[in-house]
Amino acid sequence: MTTDYRFLKACNSEPVDTTPVWMMRQAGRFLPEYRAVRSKVSFLEMCHTPALCTEVTLQPIDILGVDAAILFSDILVIIEPMGMKLDFNPSPVFEDPIKTQADADALRVIKPEEDVPYVMETIKMLRRELVSRNVPLIGFSGAPFTLVSYMVEGGTSKNFMKLKNMMWGAPQLYRSLMEKVTECVILYLKAQVEAGAQALQIFDTWGGILSPADYLNYVLPYTMRVIKAVQTPGVPVINFVGNSQGIMPLVAQAGGDVIGVDWRIDIAEARRQVGKGKAVQGNLDPLALLAPIPEIDKKVKEIIVAAGDTGHVFNLGHGIVPETPVDHVKALVESVHRHGESHRVK
Amino acid sequence: MTTDYRFLKACNSEPVDTTPVWMMRQAGRFLPEYRAVRSKVSFLEMCHTPALCTEVTLQPIDILGVDAAILFSDILVIIEPMGMKLDFNPSPVFEDPIKTQADADALRVIKPEEDVPYVMETIKMLRRELVSRNVPLIGFSGAPFTLVSYMVEGGTSKNFMKLKNMMWGAPQLYRSLMEKVTECVILYLKAQVEAGAQALQIFDTWGGILSPADYLNYVLPYTMRVIKAVQTPGVPVINFVGNSQGIMPLVAQAGGDVIGVDWRIDIAEARRQVGKGKAVQGNLDPLALLAPIPEIDKKVKEIIVAAGDTGHVFNLGHGIVPETPVDHVKALVESVHRHGESHRVK
Repeated sequence: MTTDYRFLKACNSEPVDTTPVWMMRQAGRFLPEYRAVRSKVSFLEMCHTPALCTEVTLQPIDILGVDAAILFSDILVIIEPMGMKLDFNPSPVFEDPIKTQADADALRVIKPEEDVPYVMETIKMLRRELVSRNVPLIGFSGAPFTLVSYMVEGGTSKNFMKLKNMMWGAPQLYRSLMEKVTECVILYLKAQVEAGAQALQIFDTWGGILSPADYLNYVLPYTMRVIKAVQTPGVPVINFVGNSQGIMPLVAQAGGDVIGVDWRIDIAEARRQVGKGKAVQGNLDPLALLAPIPEIDKKVKEIIVAAGDTGHVFNLGHGIVPETPVDHVKALVESVHRHGESHRVK
Repeated sequence: MTTDYRFLKACNSEPVDTTPVWMMRQAGRFLPEYRAVRSKVSFLEMCHTPALCTEVTLQPIDILGVDAAILFSDILVIIEPMGMKLDFNPSPVFEDPIKTQADADALRVIKPEEDVPYVMETIKMLRRELVSRNVPLIGFSGAPFTLVSYMVEGGTSKNFMKLKNMMWGAPQLYRSLMEKVTECVILYLKAQVEAGAQALQIFDTWGGILSPADYLNYVLPYTMRVIKAVQTPGVPVINFVGNSQGIMPLVAQAGGDVIGVDWRIDIAEARRQVGKGKAVQGNLDPLALLAPIPEIDKKVKEIIVAAGDTGHVFNLGHGIVPETPVDHVKALVESVHRHGESHRVK
């Protein structure tokens, strides 16, 4: 049945009956069922418990009817076993961010099966659960640059001053840190494929904070190395960079079978800049899910027509927000499948 | 002497001896001389006092040697006389944001000479002071969309949920508010030209939060109306939209003699998307001013070579940050003038 998954076919730019859809943060706070699970444990406990991760991963499949499941976890779980204490309050905090070469040297390279066994266990449980649902499973990792940004800033940041200061002012330290994190990301994603992930998404949430010249110099080589190293026949890689509308050709150059597209660029223009031979994924404004349903339907149609028939996975341009009404998300899925079918060249 | 200003010539895409440079927030907290003035009064008091506004406007001219002065003020000062109480703590706050049609209807259209006389007085004082310095004066306003975003959100926002909800969910209310603010912006900018402003910049700080389709529908018509209405021979208009790298052709379509360019796009690519007949302004990452001076010099050279000889005003891609070392800014100005001269086709 694997080759019959609408989502995987679209990733490989093969013909499909209609446009597949999933949403970043589809297992998230907008779902009452997610909040019910989450209310019993801390966020990190939840990430560490395969049964709970499996439960919330399946919720959007059963409730919304999306075409792919994405492993529930957090991009930062691999940083803890590297040697940095992680807290959520509720946004992620590293109390002791990386400042010196000694800090970077003290980090260890992870062994995914030993250090994050709960992720591998979740993937195995999910594959068993997903057979009857006939939906494929996406594994994921943060891109090296986004992970390093948290490790250097100590959390989320407004203008990434510490990170940029290191990048330009202490490039050797920056690069040694990027090297080590790149190695960990490769091991982590390979272990996910080994455990059963059928596609991989690389989240470079903060890759869009740099000028194109800086992205090319300080980010692209590491993302490219990850994508080359994890390439596995039949397992497409989705390369998503947030706020990437000014660097689309470079994101495509970094690699991936599918290029994630932010909502702040026209998806037809994004596809033109990405070039032939790759699929695109996106790109509804996540806030548009708060708009009246007819407005959502209109926007879905515009995106589907602009993206074209093949090689398009419908998604948001960024994660779904907690305030989103569930019935609007259901309406979105229905809209995508309806317009995806009716606007297809027969 | 007016026609001899390097800055105005570059705005009009005329030949210049070297690339002119000024910086958004060049009169700002990174200057000890600014902090000295600011320490004696509140931010709003400062905005309301022509002598102080004049003093801080002149500081970067005298200290840094930039090629243009920009009126010191805040984009929100015109919203107070429209009928909304404004505070800074330190970011701007409207305690009673616009929620209903009645709220919007209660706003009055300003009479700039009566309602913000201190701005007009500052411009007149500055023109007298700038004669001996041989530097032209830029006036400015927030774009209608950015002003309305503050009026609806009540301050700065992470994801502009209230604004987008109004735009999509109550479009008539949104449009009536945009109409009224557009009218005020036009009157305000015309009064600035009357008082002596020699160029105008429109700051659409938040114009880049929307998809291209939404920008076209909900923002472009209002910016376009402003630019058409304030057109004055010899007074170029600079249209700056933050995070606009995915909507450059639409920003150019909205109008302006000069298009502001964010740092997250290559300036040569931006110019290609803007099209012929317009100048570009930008586009160094403001954080790059924290980098070592040789790194700044390298980035300046790359931008100058990419932007080309004519129709380029050097600037940052966003406002200068308070942590910026003053000697780095002086080095930037020197770099721009040096590379601007040496890379020019003779």
